[in-house]
This record gives sequence, structure tokens and C-alpha cells, in this order.
Amino acid sequence: MTPDIAYKTLETRFKRMNLVRDAIAMLEWDSAAMMPDGGSDARAEQVATLKVLAHEQACDPALADLFATARAADPWQDANLREMRRDWLHATALPADLVEARSKAVSECEMRWRSARKANDFKGLLPAMRRVLDLTKQVAAIKAEKLGRTKYDALLDEYEPGGSAAEIDAVFADLAAFLPAFTDAVLARQAKLPAPSKLEGPFPAAAQRALAHDLMGSVGFDFAHGRLDTSHHPFCGGVPDDVRLTTRWDENDFAKGLMGVLHETGHAMYERGLPPAWRNQPVGFARGMSAHESQSLLVEMQACRSDAFLKFLAPKAAAAFGKSGPAWTAENFARVYRCVSRGLIRVDADEVTYPAHVILRYRLERALIEDRMDLADLPGAWNESMKKLIGVVPPDDRDGCLQDIHWPGGAWGYFPTYTLGAMTAAQLFAAAKKADPGIEPGLAKGDFAPLMGWLRANWHSLGSSLTTREMLVRATGKPLDAAVFKAHLKARYLDE
Amino acid sequence: MTPDIAYKTLETRFKRMNLVRDAIAMLEWDSAAMMPDGGSDARAEQVATLKVLAHEQACDPALADLFATARAADPWQDANLREMRRDWLHATALPADLVEARSKAVSECEMRWRSARKANDFKGLLPAMRRVLDLTKQVAAIKAEKLGRTKYDALLDEYEPGGSAAEIDAVFADLAAFLPAFTDAVLARQAKLPAPSKLEGPFPAAAQRALAHDLMGSVGFDFAHGRLDTSHHPFCGGVPDDVRLTTRWDENDFAKGLMGVLHETGHAMYERGLPPAWRNQPVGFARGMSAHESQSLLVEMQACRSDAFLKFLAPKAAAAFGKSGPAWTAENFARVYRCVSRGLIRVDADEVTYPAHVILRYRLERALIEDRMDLADLPGAWNESMKKLIGVVPPDDRDGCLQDIHWPGGAWGYFPTYTLGAMTAAQLFAAAKKADPGIEPGLAKGDFAPLMGWLRANWHSLGSSLTTREMLVRATGKPLDAAVFKAHLKARYLDE
Repeated sequence: MTPDIAYKTLETRFKRMNLVRDAIAMLEWDSAAMMPDGGSDARAEQVATLKVLAHEQACDPALADLFATARAADPWQDANLREMRRDWLHATALPADLVEARSKAVSECEMRWRSARKANDFKGLLPAMRRVLDLTKQVAAIKAEKLGRTKYDALLDEYEPGGSAAEIDAVFADLAAFLPAFTDAVLARQAKLPAPSKLEGPFPAAAQRALAHDLMGSVGFDFAHGRLDTSHHPFCGGVPDDVRLTTRWDENDFAKGLMGVLHETGHAMYERGLPPAWRNQPVGFARGMSAHESQSLLVEMQACRSDAFLKFLAPKAAAAFGKSGPAWTAENFARVYRCVSRGLIRVDADEVTYPAHVILRYRLERALIEDRMDLADLPGAWNESMKKLIGVVPPDDRDGCLQDIHWPGGAWGYFPTYTLGAMTAAQLFAAAKKADPGIEPGLAKGDFAPLMGWLRANWHSLGSSLTTREMLVRATGKPLDAAVFKAHLKARYLDE
Repeated sequence: MTPDIAYKTLETRFKRMNLVRDAIAMLEWDSAAMMPDGGSDARAEQVATLKVLAHEQACDPALADLFATARAADPWQDANLREMRRDWLHATALPADLVEARSKAVSECEMRWRSARKANDFKGLLPAMRRVLDLTKQVAAIKAEKLGRTKYDALLDEYEPGGSAAEIDAVFADLAAFLPAFTDAVLARQAKLPAPSKLEGPFPAAAQRALAHDLMGSVGFDFAHGRLDTSHHPFCGGVPDDVRLTTRWDENDFAKGLMGVLHETGHAMYERGLPPAWRNQPVGFARGMSAHESQSLLVEMQACRSDAFLKFLAPKAAAAFGKSGPAWTAENFARVYRCVSRGLIRVDADEVTYPAHVILRYRLERALIEDRMDLADLPGAWNESMKKLIGVVPPDDRDGCLQDIHWPGGAWGYFPTYTLGAMTAAQLFAAAKKADPGIEPGLAKGDFAPLMGWLRANWHSLGSSLTTREMLVRATGKPLDAAVFKAHLKARYLDE
């Protein structure tokens, strides 16, 4: 077989495998958004079968020969070959019995976590969680050897291709040193300003949906290539040509749900903007979790909580719900949407304190993976870090180290991507506004076209052709720099 | 390998293959009910890939050895083995190039049919339709040899396992001799009675949906195992534990749509009642198209257009739409729901004239498959049969031989199952009422439990363990008998 035919054969095989994964993505959307409860067992069997089929395709011994022979004809093919190898390595690195044991341990631990959290019973969860951690460390050790990385970096690579703890340490150290005093300053300033006025409901779901559809359209979401439905946990699913967003409607509070929809719309715009010529090829996929989160946070945090956009949003929301009065001004919307507080719960955290929640988790999970800490010591270490980084201590583990499903669910190495995403978002938004002075005036009119045009050219359409770091340097002139994020926070929260 | 292990291995393999088919069923439901237009190309690729994977599983050469070795341990396993062989035979009988050529010819012909029908251009469609027919005849010839059947029976077997033209000829001849004079008599009697009063709308979709949900619940539909949504062409899709029904809401006419929902609910009840121990095994599937249509028509035509049920329905519908007056009585509902007319269009036909539309198509498609007629002569033959069987002649081919998608779409041997289903429904309903005198009083209260209890025990739960003929003999004491259907028509339409 010639090198170019070997390459083309690999493309055909990865396309087929990724179409099976696309089918799984659609079924998983259905499970969350449409499926009646009684369908869950049948669905679990369908999805498990498709996963086995995709895995069998990845494990076909013929792939090794194809990789040995294949040569790329241009830089995109070259990047595709690199990403195929990466996919193949992650898919085949682990012995089947370890994959199965870990999958079972995770299911068991997730189930136990649900009741342990309610019962505030960390000790009861400990054996199941220790098993997940032990098996995760085995995974890390095997992948570390195959990837030639440290154990933590090997886990991180699943979510953040090419990412490293060394780089994260640098930017997180910068933030961790900055945040405590900065939070004090923000809270002191906030205390002197008027408190946010409550946006009084009720807000009928139909009116919320209409407003959300309208604003998704403003951002650029194409309803010929996607939908918005409801599910318990909002997410962005589906495939690039058929993006399925979900949300929840709280009839007493539209504000949080609306930003949630805009957040998911940011994810959707990234998927829709991926290079169409590379659909179902690894190089055509989104770059990684921080690259993805940067797009949702750029829309939600950078664009949609900006003064420019809130000026557009406040009257629009008032009209959508038939409201008026002092609570429905851009000034009050800014107070509502930028209210900072020292909270215990990550998912409820504001833009200023959120990174501290993430840094805490990142440091603890690294210590656990690297055997620098025992799992039994997690609650104490958690509370100590909370005090230091955020200034509050959880009264119990329920609102402390038991609050997130990530670790029981086997997602180790995932947490840092949230804050890497937030920092990337700030850096991209700053560069975009500099490159196109029409972006901010656009937002004030609800016109996202200039912003999205820049993002499509400088981020979305690159797929996985470059590393995340290369993408950021190409788009903003430098690698991730905490100074940009800090400058954003200072400008927004201290008017500096 | 021991015979019992070979059998169990076949079960494992068929389960996996059928889970892939289940995934396809869910994606096809989504395509019709949820998918935005822009998702269609991606979806087509997903479904095509899953179909290839299922087909590859069916074509695995290892299956031949397993079939040669496997032995069943009980009658259900024995029936399962028989149904596995049947599935395998249909899946592997044809050379790949014929399957591909026919699939392309069908796609092309369906597309041309859409414009040819609009333009009333049979001649323009002729070359594409001739190609579909020629390839279908090749399929028939190959399957006839492998199944040891006639060519037409080999095509029929895909939809009606074990069915034969000889049996159909007998019952259709009986009906064809009966219907023309009977229709005259019905129309003469109908002319003397009051005309149906129009049920004046509008009927808001939300109210129609609420009424439909309510009545589906009465029939026994379990919303923990299914949904009702909207699509252009109503159908019953999904899988037995997650049945997805669709309908359309016409705000000017609720009556037809409501019966459509009840029709699909009949299909759904069959799927839900299939033997749970045999999920994803061929013996656990519904028996065939006439067995399936018997269940939808039993609910729609036999039960829901009965005097008993219309007494329950009329006040319920009046309340649902806030209506009253003489149009909203059971008597008028009976006139609306049992109005007979000589029409040109099969899908608009009433219970009395529908069989004539089917007999016409059955006879013509057999003549075409058996080379007793040339496709160019179809319009003339169609119109002649219409005159003879229904007493009207289409003014053009648009409302004549171009009206159905079945033949352009490659479904040859499908039409007879509609009327076989209607006759089976009548025979089952008569036997059920005889076995349980509580069934009819139940319907008058909207309580379908007695009827569904009998159907579950005598039809649904049998899966494919028996032939359709054996099922009918077991449930009603005799094979399909046109006399029962004729007696039903005479009782309902002539009060005899």
C-alpha cells in the first residue's frame, strides 16, 4: 500500500468510527432531552453496543500498519495524522480489563456519591472513591508511559491535549496570589454601591424560550442546524451540523437560565464554525476542553455581561416579560449579573471567585494522583484551602468536598480547563476588540456578527490543526497570560 | 462448539445487531420529529454507517457455521432460530451490487415521483420506475430461489412472513365480489339518513394534544415508555420500551388526526406488549405487517369507531374544545366517522372502500412482477380497475396510479398487508368480544383494559413464536376468513 493510500484509508476508517460516535452523541442528547424514564435500560444497551463497535474499530490491528505506512500530503493532513494517532493511543492504551473495572467502579461510585452527598457521609463514600482513584492512577501510569508525560499530564491530555501542569502551575500561581486581596477590594467596593434590585417574576417558560431564541439568533445560532430543548443539566450536544442545546426554565428567575443558554450558544457557535471540509476527521474537531470553554465563556462572561450588551439586553428582557421600573435598567442588570460573593459552591460562583474554586480542586487532585496526599485527608485539605483561597469554610462535606460529581465520575484532570477557558476567553476578547473596533458597538445593538466573524477566522475554523498554545499565540500574539484576565477583572469590578 | 453454545452465540450476535437497528430506529424518529433541515446530510451519513455495520454483522461468515451447529432447547428457542435464519436469509440473499443499484434506483425514482406526481407525468416517471421494477424482479427471482417460493411470495415475505398470494387471492376474491354491490347498498342507505353535521373549529393544537394524551392513556399507552410528537407523516417508531408516536395537528379538523393517534396507539400497544424476555431477539419481534396493522386498525376501526366508544368520545371531545350542540353527539360522531364515499385516493378512503383500493394495487403489482403486464400499460389498467372495483375513474394519473409512493419507493408486496390487517382486526375483535363480554361495556366507559388484556394474552405476547396463520387460528379458532370482515361491515353499515 502506498503512503497516500494508507493515509486515505485511515481517513475512511476514522470517518466511520466518528459517525458511530456522532450517532451516540445524538442518542445521548435524546436520553437527556426527550427519552421517557422507562426507555433508559434499552437506551443504555444501544449506547453500550455502539461504543463497543466504535472501540472495536479503534482496536483493529490493521491500524498499526496503516499508521506505519501513511504519509500526509499537506499540513492539514499532517495534523490530522497526529490527531488520529492521539485518538488511537487514548482508545487503545489501556487493557480491556482495566477499562471495564474502572467503568464499573465509576458507576458504583457515582451512585454512592448521590446518597453520600445527601447524607453528608464522606467516610461512607471513601472506599468506592478510593477504588476509582486507584484505578485512575493505574490509567495515569500506563498513559504516562505511552505518551512520555507525567501521570497528571497524561490524565489532563484527555481533556486538554498537550496541556501540562507546569504551564497551569504558572498561571494559577499568578491568579492564586492575586485573587484573595482582589476579592476583598471588590467586596468592599460593592458594599458601597446600591444592592441589585430583584427582577420580580414569574417568568413564563414560553416567554423565556422566545427571548432565548431571539438572543441565540442575535449571537448567530442557525436554527436550521440546531435546536434548543430542556434537560435537567444544560449542555451542548449533537454534532456540528445539528447542534442540540438544552437548558432549564426557572419561572421565578430568568436571569441565570438566560446566561446559561448564551453560554451553551458559545459552545454551539464553536461547533458550527469548525472546518466543514474536515467533518468527522480528528483534525476537524474542537481543540479541547479549555478551547471549548473559552468560547462559551467568551459569549457568556466577556460579551453578554459587558456594559455594551447589557444596554441592549435590559429593555429587550423588560419587553419580553412585560416589565418596567428601576430593576429593568442596564445599570441594575450589571449589578445582578456581576454580583460577587464568597460562596461554598463552585457552580454558583461568580466570575471573580470561580477560579479559586478551580485552583483548589486542581491542586488537590494533583496531590492525590501524585501520591502526595491520602484520600482520607481530603475534607481537611479542602476546608483549609477554601479558607485560604476564598475566605469561607464549609460547615460540612456536603457543601465541601462532596459537592462535585467529577471525581466520583472519573473525571480527573478536568477541573483546570474551566479556568484556563475563562482566561483564554478574556485574552481572545481583548485581542478581538483590538482587531475590530466594531465589535463592542455591535454588541450594544445585539449584533454579534463582527465578534463571530473574528472568532470564526481566528479560532473556530482552525479545528485541531494547531495546539491550543499555537492557536492562542496566532490569535493574540502570546501564550496564555494571567495578566489579561486580571486586567479584565480589574476593569470590570474595580473600574480600573 | 456445542449446539447449545452455538445457539447462545447466535442470540448474542443477533442481540448486538438488533441493538444497532434500534439505534437506527431512534435516529429515524429524530429525523422525522426533531431534526432541523440542516442536519439531514449528517444524519444520512450516521444512519448509512450504522446500516453498514449491522449488515456486516449479518454477513459474518461465522454465522453459517453457527447455524449449522446450533440446536434449540425449547419451542421459543426453536422459533427464534427459525426467525434468525429468516432474517439472515433476507439480509444476505442479495449480492451487494444489486442492493446498491436498487437503493440508488429507488432514491432516484422517489425523487422523480415527487415532481412527476405534481406534473401528472406518468411517462416522465416511466424510465425510473421501470428500473426499480426490473431490479425488484431480480430481487424477487433470487429470493424466490433461496426461499423456495414464487417471485411475488418472496417479495411478500419481507413484509408478511410466510404469506402467500394463493391465500390472499382467496380472501380478496371473496371481498372483490362482495364490495361493489355492498357499497351501492351502503350509499343508498346513507343517502336516506341525515348528513353528518360539521364539527366546527378551530381546534387549538394544545387542546388536541391534551385530548389525544388523555385518550392514549385510556387505551393503555404508558408515557413512561413512550412519547407523542409531531411529524409530517404520522408513524409509530422507536423501540418496544420507548415507543415514539407522531401525528399532525390540523386546527380546522381534529377528527381525522385524533383517529390517526388512536391508530398509532394500536401499533404502540403491540410493541409494548411483545414478550420482554425476548427483547432484541427475532422471536421477540412483532409478527409482520398484517399482524401489526391488525392492531392499529383494531383500535382505530373496530374499537374507536364502535357505538360504544363514540358514546364515550363525543362528550369528552365536546368538553375538550368547549363545544356543544347537535354536532357533538355520539350519533353525529358516528355519521362523521363512518361516512362512505367513492373516492379516488386510498389514504382518504373509508373502511368500506379501502379494501378495493388495496385489491386493485395487489393485482396490478402481481401482474407487473409476474410479467403479465407491461409497466407502460399501468395507467389504463389502473383506471379500468377503479371503474370496476370502486365505480369512479381518475381524471388524471396524479389522482390515479401516481398517488402512492410505495412502488417508486421499492415497496412491492406491501399493499395487501393493509387489508389483511383490517380483516384480521375484525376477526380478532369478534373473538375478543365473544371471549370477554366486558370488552364492549368497557369501551363505552373509555376503559380498554379488558380488550388490551385479551390482546396481550392472545396476540402481543406471542412475538414471532408462531406464524401469522397459527396465531390467528389460536386466537379465533380459524384462519383468515373474509366472512367475519363482511359481517362486521354489514352490521356497522347496513345494521344487519
